[in-house]
Amino acid sequence: MENFAFHAPTKIYFGKGQIENLENILSKYGKNVLLAYGGGSIKKNGIYNKVYELLKDFNICELEGIEPNPRIGTVRKGIEICKQNNVDVILAVGGGSTIDCTKLIGAGIHYDGDAWDLVKEPSKVDKVVPVVTILTIAATGSEMNQTAVITNPETNEKLSARLKGMAPRASILDPEYTYTLPAIQTAAGAADIMSHVIENYFKSTEGAYLQDKISEGILQTCIKYCPVALQNPTDYEARSNLMWASSLALNGLCGRGKDNEIWSCHPIEHELSAFYDITHGVGLAILTPRWMRYILSEKTVDKFVDYAVNVWNFDKSDDKFELANKAIDATEKFFINCGIPMNLGKLGIDDSLLEKMSNAVIAHRDLKDAYVPLSAEDVLNILKMCL
Amino acid sequence: MENFAFHAPTKIYFGKGQIENLENILSKYGKNVLLAYGGGSIKKNGIYNKVYELLKDFNICELEGIEPNPRIGTVRKGIEICKQNNVDVILAVGGGSTIDCTKLIGAGIHYDGDAWDLVKEPSKVDKVVPVVTILTIAATGSEMNQTAVITNPETNEKLSARLKGMAPRASILDPEYTYTLPAIQTAAGAADIMSHVIENYFKSTEGAYLQDKISEGILQTCIKYCPVALQNPTDYEARSNLMWASSLALNGLCGRGKDNEIWSCHPIEHELSAFYDITHGVGLAILTPRWMRYILSEKTVDKFVDYAVNVWNFDKSDDKFELANKAIDATEKFFINCGIPMNLGKLGIDDSLLEKMSNAVIAHRDLKDAYVPLSAEDVLNILKMCL
Repeated sequence: MENFAFHAPTKIYFGKGQIENLENILSKYGKNVLLAYGGGSIKKNGIYNKVYELLKDFNICELEGIEPNPRIGTVRKGIEICKQNNVDVILAVGGGSTIDCTKLIGAGIHYDGDAWDLVKEPSKVDKVVPVVTILTIAATGSEMNQTAVITNPETNEKLSARLKGMAPRASILDPEYTYTLPAIQTAAGAADIMSHVIENYFKSTEGAYLQDKISEGILQTCIKYCPVALQNPTDYEARSNLMWASSLALNGLCGRGKDNEIWSCHPIEHELSAFYDITHGVGLAILTPRWMRYILSEKTVDKFVDYAVNVWNFDKSDDKFELANKAIDATEKFFINCGIPMNLGKLGIDDSLLEKMSNAVIAHRDLKDAYVPLSAEDVLNILKMCL
Repeated sequence: MENFAFHAPTKIYFGKGQIENLENILSKYGKNVLLAYGGGSIKKNGIYNKVYELLKDFNICELEGIEPNPRIGTVRKGIEICKQNNVDVILAVGGGSTIDCTKLIGAGIHYDGDAWDLVKEPSKVDKVVPVVTILTIAATGSEMNQTAVITNPETNEKLSARLKGMAPRASILDPEYTYTLPAIQTAAGAADIMSHVIENYFKSTEGAYLQDKISEGILQTCIKYCPVALQNPTDYEARSNLMWASSLALNGLCGRGKDNEIWSCHPIEHELSAFYDITHGVGLAILTPRWMRYILSEKTVDKFVDYAVNVWNFDKSDDKFELANKAIDATEKFFINCGIPMNLGKLGIDDSLLEKMSNAVIAHRDLKDAYVPLSAEDVLNILKMCL
């Protein structure tokens, strides 16, 4: 186990009706609130009206239309609104995109330069405006960490930054809010959760046994409950387990102590969605089993055996590679059964930009420090397997 | 899954040499430090001198001699020292007893009445002096939660209180500090960790699958590594996994969402150690398998089957009770193999006070709200099984 720092200060309000705590939570910070959200589904599912009802003594300004893969332009717009309205606290209602966007807004309000600087150099973050969230999809884990992923379309960059002090102060996690999600978003969300865990599980760190046990538990939770939620969208048990899994998958429990290597599929997927604006979880589901097949070797096979036995419940056998391949097949089949389009072609992506993307991956994140080091050529090979 | 609030704000500095961050951590709070510790082992293992070396620009006063099962008198003494020295921050160096004691000191400094009031009515806690810890044993989890267990010898009470705001601000977890622990303390610590998990695992809550998966992972971690640490006390992998397991077992991950029932073995053990001042983890190890045998029934057997298969890796079989009993036997045998004296008689406890203790258990905590409701007579029966 590597040395690590662990800090997950977000206060979680989990369960049915927890939105009733909203006034209490926000009033610690002040009366001027930025309400930030995405495409307007919160007006259909009633959260929007409920927020206004609960916050009748607050001054609310709005940032609406935060896009999936949130863009730096939207962040800049949000910062302007906050400055004009002396915003004390930001309320993000939505999924990872909305929450990520508000983290950079909160960090950027008191920063003199352009907010994109903070993505490039997160150490510049100083005084911040706090963020509180109401989560509407189980996926990114952004509700319980300080990471934000922001896209800069001018430079075709989609970068991840750990913004100090920008873990949400509180997050309201009501599983019932995910009842009305489109099936593909439920499935892509589960794929996102699983990818966060898998990226940390497959590392060469010695002796981080406890982290791996927690990881296996989160993966089993997704495997058990994503199909249930797809079959019956209002199954509270499934929705609550997926939602809590989302937060625990990326709050440090699976990864701290295993920080010796960087992730593999996320940096590749970030280029895919920077170039093609695809759904992050779909990109990860497509990449993950292909990446697994590509890196399977004598050196990595034992980890795949653990994955096969402890996550997929296959019986131990003498043929380690057979077992590893069964687990990879199971991973791919699971995503297919969840209704995820499992080829880039199905998303309208051909081979024309694969080489450019592969080079961009390595330019933004040198994958020589990954679990299995990857060159631009390796990334290209993996992307070709995804076509 | 029940509704819950989860908040684990303690910043963890985990690994070799993390004490080097001490000055940095404490200087946020001020220069006047109370250094609190137990029986003086910190002078032998070098931590005491290291603290003075690192804090040469601080004003340090001391509270030494905090006893196992810390007493309210020691708390009162600590509060007096803090008031006299205008203490800004308390540095607890030790295990759960020392940390628990300092939490109540921190809560009591600005409280006008007697500190015991706060144990009885934790909602009275208002302004507090923060606590930072350096952990020297993997056991209670006190390093990452706001609970304190304090004994009042005047009333033969040992009570547990959740003191708002008293989760340590930061905890330094260096597994190397546990290399020199006596074997019985390593074993009793592991039993304590396992008991925290088992108390939450065995509940009738529906659908808290993720919590149970995390619980199974922590239990497997203790079962794997406690024997290794006993065999080779300087095995870093074993010590680091046990230490992180200690914190995660009782920071809310296993229990939040399963708060519908109260614990069973802890309330009973608290009377044992209030009456006889025995080691908490030893008392729990003795009680746990007996309690399991006592509550095994048609109604509870399925949970024991999960425990047998997912924690002890027994193959599923048709005879559920056989499987349950195998798991209970394995639990008892595990503690025996760890060198824990597994009968009250071995601790010099006879049957003379069993009835008085059983009544005291129910007087302090009505176990009708436990997983399997227990009367004073039930408690007496369980205690008799432990003789």
